[in-house]
Formats: sequence, C-alpha cells, structure tokens
Amino acid sequence: MKKEMVDLILHNATVVTMDDEYRVITNGAVAIKGDSILMVGSSSDILAGCQANETIDCQEKVLLPGLIDVHTHLPMNLLRGLADDRRLDVWLMGYMMPVEREFVSPDFSHLGTLFACAELIRSGVTCFADMYYFEDAVATAAVEAGLRGVCGQTVLKFPSPDAPSFEDALALARELMVKWKNHPLITPAVAPHAPYTCTPEILRACTDLALEFDVPLHIHLSETKQEVDQCREQHGMPVIPWVKKQGIFEAKVIAAHCVYIDEGEIHTLKHANAGVAHNPSSNMKLASGFAPVVEMLNAQLNVGIGTDGSSSNNDLDMFEEIRLANFIAKGYSGDPTVLPARQTLAISTRLAAKAIHLGDQIGSLEPGKRADLILIDIFTTHNLPHFNHDKNAIYSRLVYASKSTDVSDVMVNGRWIMRNREVLTLDEDSIKKATADYATRIDTFLIEREGSVLSKLVAIAGAEQEESYEVQIKVPLSDPELIIDKLSGGEFEIVRTAHYIEYDTYFTFKDPSQGCLRYREDEFIDAKGEVFNVRYRLTVTGPVAEREYYNSVLLSRSRFIAPATHSLRFYREYFKPESEVEINKDRLRWLINFRDEEFFINIDRLTKPAIDGAFLEIKSRTWSRMDAERKAEMISELLKTLGIAKTKPTVTEYINLIANS
Amino acid sequence: MKKEMVDLILHNATVVTMDDEYRVITNGAVAIKGDSILMVGSSSDILAGCQANETIDCQEKVLLPGLIDVHTHLPMNLLRGLADDRRLDVWLMGYMMPVEREFVSPDFSHLGTLFACAELIRSGVTCFADMYYFEDAVATAAVEAGLRGVCGQTVLKFPSPDAPSFEDALALARELMVKWKNHPLITPAVAPHAPYTCTPEILRACTDLALEFDVPLHIHLSETKQEVDQCREQHGMPVIPWVKKQGIFEAKVIAAHCVYIDEGEIHTLKHANAGVAHNPSSNMKLASGFAPVVEMLNAQLNVGIGTDGSSSNNDLDMFEEIRLANFIAKGYSGDPTVLPARQTLAISTRLAAKAIHLGDQIGSLEPGKRADLILIDIFTTHNLPHFNHDKNAIYSRLVYASKSTDVSDVMVNGRWIMRNREVLTLDEDSIKKATADYATRIDTFLIEREGSVLSKLVAIAGAEQEESYEVQIKVPLSDPELIIDKLSGGEFEIVRTAHYIEYDTYFTFKDPSQGCLRYREDEFIDAKGEVFNVRYRLTVTGPVAEREYYNSVLLSRSRFIAPATHSLRFYREYFKPESEVEINKDRLRWLINFRDEEFFINIDRLTKPAIDGAFLEIKSRTWSRMDAERKAEMISELLKTLGIAKTKPTVTEYINLIANS
Repeated sequence: MKKEMVDLILHNATVVTMDDEYRVITNGAVAIKGDSILMVGSSSDILAGCQANETIDCQEKVLLPGLIDVHTHLPMNLLRGLADDRRLDVWLMGYMMPVEREFVSPDFSHLGTLFACAELIRSGVTCFADMYYFEDAVATAAVEAGLRGVCGQTVLKFPSPDAPSFEDALALARELMVKWKNHPLITPAVAPHAPYTCTPEILRACTDLALEFDVPLHIHLSETKQEVDQCREQHGMPVIPWVKKQGIFEAKVIAAHCVYIDEGEIHTLKHANAGVAHNPSSNMKLASGFAPVVEMLNAQLNVGIGTDGSSSNNDLDMFEEIRLANFIAKGYSGDPTVLPARQTLAISTRLAAKAIHLGDQIGSLEPGKRADLILIDIFTTHNLPHFNHDKNAIYSRLVYASKSTDVSDVMVNGRWIMRNREVLTLDEDSIKKATADYATRIDTFLIEREGSVLSKLVAIAGAEQEESYEVQIKVPLSDPELIIDKLSGGEFEIVRTAHYIEYDTYFTFKDPSQGCLRYREDEFIDAKGEVFNVRYRLTVTGPVAEREYYNSVLLSRSRFIAPATHSLRFYREYFKPESEVEINKDRLRWLINFRDEEFFINIDRLTKPAIDGAFLEIKSRTWSRMDAERKAEMISELLKTLGIAKTKPTVTEYINLIANS
Repeated sequence: MKKEMVDLILHNATVVTMDDEYRVITNGAVAIKGDSILMVGSSSDILAGCQANETIDCQEKVLLPGLIDVHTHLPMNLLRGLADDRRLDVWLMGYMMPVEREFVSPDFSHLGTLFACAELIRSGVTCFADMYYFEDAVATAAVEAGLRGVCGQTVLKFPSPDAPSFEDALALARELMVKWKNHPLITPAVAPHAPYTCTPEILRACTDLALEFDVPLHIHLSETKQEVDQCREQHGMPVIPWVKKQGIFEAKVIAAHCVYIDEGEIHTLKHANAGVAHNPSSNMKLASGFAPVVEMLNAQLNVGIGTDGSSSNNDLDMFEEIRLANFIAKGYSGDPTVLPARQTLAISTRLAAKAIHLGDQIGSLEPGKRADLILIDIFTTHNLPHFNHDKNAIYSRLVYASKSTDVSDVMVNGRWIMRNREVLTLDEDSIKKATADYATRIDTFLIEREGSVLSKLVAIAGAEQEESYEVQIKVPLSDPELIIDKLSGGEFEIVRTAHYIEYDTYFTFKDPSQGCLRYREDEFIDAKGEVFNVRYRLTVTGPVAEREYYNSVLLSRSRFIAPATHSLRFYREYFKPESEVEINKDRLRWLINFRDEEFFINIDRLTKPAIDGAFLEIKSRTWSRMDAERKAEMISELLKTLGIAKTKPTVTEYINLIANS
C-alpha cells in the first residue's frame, strides 16, 4: 500500500474534531500537508497510512481546532484598564474617544495588534474578526504574528483618527481590499461602525463595497437598549429591520452584540445568513445586557463568541469568554441545561467560523480544512479527575475547567506559532516595552486634561457628542419681518415651526483651548405666547471650527451636550469660569424642506444685551465632505430666494459677536 | 537606632494592603516575625528599621493579602465534571447524592481536600470555609497543605455518609470542636446543611453547639427560588425570618448563597453580624439566580466570595470568581459603575475575613495580622500596559486582567507553601494519581447503574426524595367501622380528614435491588362521594428498610417521588418491568394530634384484589433516632387506645402482602 506523503503527523492526542458529528478520537492523529489537514483518524491508522517529514507525540493532550474570536478591536489592547467602572458615556466620550483622537496612528494599530496577537496566541486563538482604524496596519501585524484574521476597516459619520470624513474611510476600505483580497491569512472587510454612527448612504456604500469584493461587512447592531429605543423613536422600527431596509443584508454580515433583538429579528438574521458575535464579558462589564444566545441557536443562527477587545473586557482570554457565555446563558434563562458544554465549544469553533463566513476553511479538524489547531493539557491539577461514563465529559473539561494557560501549542495555516507556551513569531519583550511607552504618554495626556471643562462635564453628567458635521451660516437682518413673511408665505415647505425664549449663560476660561461652556434655559412658547415647557442644557463648544469652507460655511465644530440637572450656581462653583456672559434671545425656528433637503432656519432677536435688528441662521446636518459642499451651495441659493444674498454671512457665535461689538 | 529583629522582609513590591484606608505602597515592603506581620511600609523604611534573617526582592510584583474562599466543599474536587449540564434535581438526586452515599469516606474527604488545597494554593487562596462530611479529615488535610480553614461538619436530617442520624452528625461536630478548637490554622465549625434539610430542633442544637464553643455556624440559605417559595408555603415567611425564629443568629453565622433575599432580610443579616458567601459561578452554572450583592454591600453587610466546590463550578479559581462576581453585579444591575474593582477585591480579602468571622486575624496586610499573603506577577502579556493616572488602576489590573496562574508565591501563617508556582507542602503527582483511581471506580458504579430504575426516573422526570425517616406500622382490621367510629367519636383531635380511591400499578424488576416502581392515580373523593381531583405520581421504593425497630416500627426506607406526566403505557415501555401487579383500594385518612404529636392514620380497603376486612396504617415523620423510638412507643399507646393492641403489626407493603397471600 502506497503511503501518503505528508509534512507532519500529530499523534497520541485526544482529537476533538468539532465536525458536524462531533467526532472525538481517543489516541487520535491528524496528518498535515502544506497549509491543510489531509487526514484525521486513529493514531494507528494515520501512522500506518502516511509517511511524514515530522511526527510529534502529543502526549494525550487535546487536539482542538483553534478558537475563533469573532469580534474584537485588537489595537485597543494598548488601552487595557484605561478607565474602568465608569458609565458607558463617560468611558466612551470621556476617555476612549479623546485618547483615540490623540494617539491612534498606523504605529498604534500595528503595535497594538502585535501585542494583542501575542495574547490571542497564548489563549489558543487562531483567527479573529477585527474592526478598527488603520486596519491595513492591523492586517500587517496579524501576518507578522502568523494569525488568521478578518480585518474590517471602520467607516462612520464622525471624523475618525484615520479619516476626516466617511468618504476617506471608504477609500481606505477599498485600498485594504485591493491589497489583501487574496492573502492566505487575511480576509479584508468593511466595518460601518453602527447604525447610529452611520447614515443610510454610508451603510449603502459599505454594502456595495462588500458586494463588489465579496467580503464580510462587520457592524455593531443592537448593543444597548438605548440604541434600540432611539432607533424605534427615529425610524419607527427596531435596529435589525431598519438596517435590513438599508440593504446591508445583501452582504455577508458579521453582526456584533445583538443584545436587544426579538424573535422576528433573529429570523431576519437567519434568513440573511448573518453571523452573530456574542460578547459576554463586554456586555456584562459595560452592563449592556444579556444577548438571547439560546434563542439564536435554537433558530439555527451562526453564533460565535468575541472578546470585544481589551478596553472593555479587559483581556483576550477566550477560555474565560467561553465559560462566561455558558454561565450567563444558564443564569439568565434559569435553566442549567441550556447551552451545554459541547454547544458552547461549537460556538467558539465550527459555528464561529460560519459566523465570520469562513466556515469552508476553518472551525473543525477535517480533511481539506486549513491546519489551524491547538494542543491543550488536560492533566493539570485544576482539570482532574477525568470521568468517562458520559461521552460529553471531554467538552465539560474544556469548557468548565480549562484555562488559556493550559494551551501549549498553536498552529495556523500549517505553521507553528507557539510551541510549549513560547510564541515563535513575536518578540514579546520588546512589544511589552513599547506598550509601556504609549501608557506613559497617555497618562500624561489624561493627567493634563483632568482640568478640562469637557472632562469635568463628563464626570458629573456624561455628555453626548452632537453631530459634529454641520453646515451653518449667520446673517444680520435689518428687517426680520420681511423674512418671516417670506417663510410663512407658502413658498417653502414647512416641516415644523417652534418658538423659544433662550436664557444663555456662557462660561469662558483662562485657557482658550478649553472652549466655552453654555448653560441654557429654553422656554418653549405656544401660539398664545405662553410658556408650555422648559429645558435646561449644558453645551461645551470647542474653540475653533475644525474646517471652514468657502462662502463662510462652517463644517464641523466639536460640540458636547448634556442635560443640566443642577443650578447655575452649582455649575459656577464646579467649573470656576474666568468670566461669564449672559445672552437672552427670542428665537423663531422653521424646519423647511428646500429642494428635498432639510434646513433649519432661525430668526433670533437679542434681548440681552439688547441689539437692534435680528440674525438669520441657516443650518443643515451632513456627514460627507461632498454633501457639505453641495449644501453650502444650496444655502447660497436659499439666501438668494430669501432676498438676502448680498449680506455677508458669518460663522461667529453670538458670544463672540457681542464681545467684538 | 535599634533595629527590629524579624524573620523575613519582602521588599520591592507593590503592596496592596486592603486595609480600611486601601493603602497602596509602591516599592513597599512587609516585615514578618513568626506567624505574623510586624511592619508594613516603604522598602526603604522597612529595610532601614529591621534586621531580617532573610530578605526577598519581590521584583515589583503585587504583594496582596491571600484570597479567601468563603464557601466551598473541598472533597467534592474528586467529583469535578461528574454530571454537567443537568437539571438541578437530576444533578443532585441522580448523581451527587448516590455517588456520595457510595464513595464518601474519611479517605475520600482527606484526599479530596489535599487535591483541592493544591488547586486553591495555585489560585492564591490562603483560607477557606468548608462544609462537608468527615470534616475532621478535611481539617487534617488542610493542615498538611498548610492552608488556613474554617471546617464545618455537616448536620442534616437525612442519613449522610458519615452519620446515620442527626445526633451522630452532631456528635461528630462536637468531637471536631474539642479536637481543633485552638489550632493555629483550623477553626472548627458546625454546618447545619440548610433550612429545608434540617428541622427546628437540629438548627437549635447546632446553634447551641456553636455558642458553647464560640465557633461559626455555616449554613446554606435562600439558594433557590423554590426553597424560598416552599418556606413561605410551609412557614408563612421567607427563609431568613424563619431561621431567625429558630435562633440561629445567636451564633456567628456564615450564610451561603442568599440569592433570594429582600431588603428586610438583608437588614436582619446585618443586624445579626452574619457573613454572606456569594457564589457567582455556582449560582450561574446551576441557574439558581443572581444574589443582590450590591444591595448587601450598600447595607454594610460583610460579603465574601466562594467557589462552592468543584462539583458545581467546576474549579477553585478565585480570580475567575472575583471577576464573575464583578461582571454579574454590573450585568444584573444594568449599571457599569457598581461593584468597582477595589470593592470587588475587598470582598475577596478584608470583608471576606469578616464574613467568616476571622476579621481580626486575616484579610489585610497590617501589623499584628497573620502573615497570609501572595505575590502576583502583573507584567504578563495579558496585563499590560499599566496606566497610572487613576489610583484605582491597580485594583482594575488585579480584578479584570490577572489570572490565577499569575500567582507565583503563597504564604500562610508566616510559612511559604508555594514558591515560583511550586507547591511546597503537597506531592501533587501522587495526589493526581489517587484521584484517577476514584474516578475509575465512580465511572464503573455509574455505568452499572445506568440501568437502574431510579436513575431512569430521575432522567425523565426528576425526583424528590421523600423524607426518608418514617415510623410506620400496619395492622389487619376485621372490623374497620369500630375504628372509624372511635376516630370520629371526639376522643381524638382531628387536624384533617381525606378520602381517596387509589389505583396503583406496581412494576417489579428482575434485579430485586432495583426496588419497586409504583404508578398511582389518586382520586380525591368529596363528602358527596364525588371525585373532585386526581393526582398521578411515580414512586420508587428501595428494596429493604434501612433500619427496623422493636415493635416492628419501620424507620427509614428510601423513597423517591415524581409527578407522573405520561401514560401508564409510556412508563411500561420506558421501564420495561419484569412483572406488574395492580392494587386498587379505598383509603380513609385522618391526620390526628395525639399527645402533641401528629400521626397519619389510614384505613384501607383493598378492592383489587378484593380482600375482606381492611388495614390500619399509622405513620409519623421523624428525623432523630431518639424521637423515632419515642414515637414508636406512642404508636403502641395509640393502638391500645384504639383497642387493637393485641393484633400483631407488620411493616410489609401491600404488594408483598398480596404476593404472599
């Protein structure tokens, strides 16, 4: 009998194949040729049937397909432990986003990924699905580490560390695809961040790109209750139907979180063949909630487990994630029989591979699949004794008692990347040193910032970043009644109108880079001139427009808003402003439809300080550079239509107008 | 300046004292003399102020008080992974209890504890609070391992592996106290298992014993919703008020679980200075629920974290427990700021020590406390980088990213028991070999038992063990009307009466040790002779009375009951009996009060097979050998009062009476 020539035989292992039949082979073996598995069987059969360049005795360890981390943000490993035990908005707006804005670079993404890969390898992970900035650097680092990865370039409507606008991010995603499309380890992907940070046109553009290159689309969906409530309010439907309407399910979707989805949404995801990334640690630590994993699995959805990155976890230990996924399914359902150990391991291997649309290549030990595998020592003090009366005991051992530190060896694509707990592909010591350097710089930045107005606001109230791309102009009006008549004359399509009296107090600070804090009381006035509602808000406005366009259109100024639940006196004492300016005004507001775009028009009369005449403001939201330019043009048209095209517009805020007057 | 003479200085450590002020000393040191800490301070101060026999450079590791596992069942380490993913009743009744009955011995408890101690030491635990059988063997093993322990001898109303009755268990507890009372490592304790497995007199006796020796009373309280519902039903109040009424809070209580307790109960526990043992893994894995830990801590209760033993966990990894306690508090409350890392570590150290009533000796690094401490490497790949802008970052690192395998060294009572991850006190290899021997024997037992009737019943329906101590007799009656008249004549205090028609089908099996399975339909008959309710039940009765007393009083016969939700046909096919016997009877039942004790009296007339006359049965529940003997006497009195003292009673079951007739 002619023997098969192979590169390597791993024998004398408990081979836990994780194939469709859940075959477990005691004293089993795997024969590897090149990057792939050629045969799986008993040690005696494989040794008899194959001639190998190298034969390794696995000493009765478990031979398992490599674990798959289906949702992560690897470079954020550099931010591990940056700001724990905070409210979600404080954590995100007060720490993650400012630090990312300041520090994320190609070097950050590259180093962070190398560092994360060392941890992943030590935890038995052979493949990940990432979503971050400078994703080309992530892919480059993963290849250096020897790991397999689905690398998703983030696209969102805010300026990001690697792209000032969504078109720039989309261009990066396209470059990523062109460069990495046929790499043996890397699958490029596009990652529109989330429905609430994307517009329909961003989702559409990302879907088209994913379809063009036949790659996955990785997105956060239904992570928090707030997100779903907001979606219902804005669009009259929950998140999954809304993104379906935008067409994203035409692509191969990896849907991260899915904490708040109902039965119908589960079926929508199943019908779309979307994969779901369940992130147990992150959902617990950030108190997002409990994803209905059991219901998803009952509906035959492909669910995988993700770490969500070290900034919200705080590590990349897949053994912990697996156990936690199991425990919370049982605890949450009140049924200790749900998500048994075997199924829990399936959603970390075979089903996880399907969830990231690599099910034909990885996820189980089967002939033809890539040789992505790990060896696990199950003869440790914490994993004995071994009972054999139940055939599922091996899964129980792996899920309930194994630790990441029990993984001794890791192979990806037929290449060893860890042997005897030594990572072969990375210089861990120099990576660790480099991470310390980032930590020092970030510490310095945060300590300096401790006095910042925004940080103090976030600390007491949290804050929401307002949509930061805005086209806006301001025009002094000598005769406001003329404009009011025009607007009310039926020429424009009025969506709604409003009338406020606004009492603003501006706090300014010694350091002008702190920007300006506004305390505003909005009195809502009804048709009879009566106050029917009052709203109290704090707004921090950044010191400079991030970009100014021709025709004095302002595109983007950072602006953070929080409800003001305390008194003006409280805020005065808390923020200690250098000076205060009071401005009161009467504002008439129209939301109009002008050539199929919505514009806000304000007519403001200043009552304190009393200034004659009035001001006209026109504003519109935008997320795209091109769109901003188009809307700036439209504002010029609108000014013409209103008959005030000749007045020079300005972008100056009222507080500055007054200071200068 | 005269230097203090000490045995050992540990310096160049990040000393995380966990004292009341949460002092953290960078480049700190601890000076140890004998079994205790003499000084804690900066390395320079300690090195200048002390003259030591030995000085150890801790290389910037974290020096932390040893972790405390406040609720565990150490010998059950030998049952790790025995029967996972089962319903609670199936797990307990079908696996744990039968295996314990068969295998638990002094050797089992000793070996299991040695084995568990090796795992605890490797996980940084220096002290535990245990509850098991043969607790003297647990204490002996703990001393061999060099660990500190609160060792609680179990007392309960069922026969247990080490005590056929509660008086025997109580005697064992007393012996434990006499033997270990003043040991430097061991604190003996009494452990009435739970309110539902103890009687008021058992709780009282245990409390008295705890008070006599001034030792803790360790008990499971409010672990499941079912337990609380049952307590409300039986006693009209939830668990904590009920046990308070029994007086247990006069003792120093360690209350394990407390999953279902309300605000009032929290205050009762606080008022009693009871410690609470929170068991996150166990409560999740067995789907018991989420304990209100945050509410308990807000009420200033002393809460600690427990592993609950490897049979429901499946390991003794305190770092996992700590992280899980933190995550579920956040996930369950929906608030990511609750139970911050620092507080989470406190409930594993200082507060845990208070919870087990050893707060004056251990739980923090302070002069005068015992030298129970551990060293943790925080420079691992999974625990970098280190941010310092936030003084709580050190706690975050320990709680969110450290692993048990990062613990390098462990000291208890001034003695090293692990150095550089080598356990110094135990021969782990020989312990591991011995555990394998138990596993083989238990596997054999369970495989043989797979055909057992009880196991099959448990597998489909679960089963409740009926109170297994019962005094009962049976007397043939030639003239039942005479007795009926007597019972109705006002001479006895009747609590309630009932009338059933019972249709029984008995399955018997080839192997008589399988006992007998009864399928019973109870028709409940009202005063007009109409059926107003029907109940279907399955009962497995063991083959022999476990003990028979003089006067043919039967004490204890194992009996398992389950609701019968399927048809007789289904059960016939499922259990495959060798033969079947049908017995129908008319039963009149009285519950009477006789000299302040409750007795059930049945008058049974057999209609199939039709037998002339009738039978009188008298039964009473009991939990104590002495009480059983007293009640047997009372039954003789009762028979006399009923005028049938001269008929010879029997304990034979109807099926045997018929077979013999």
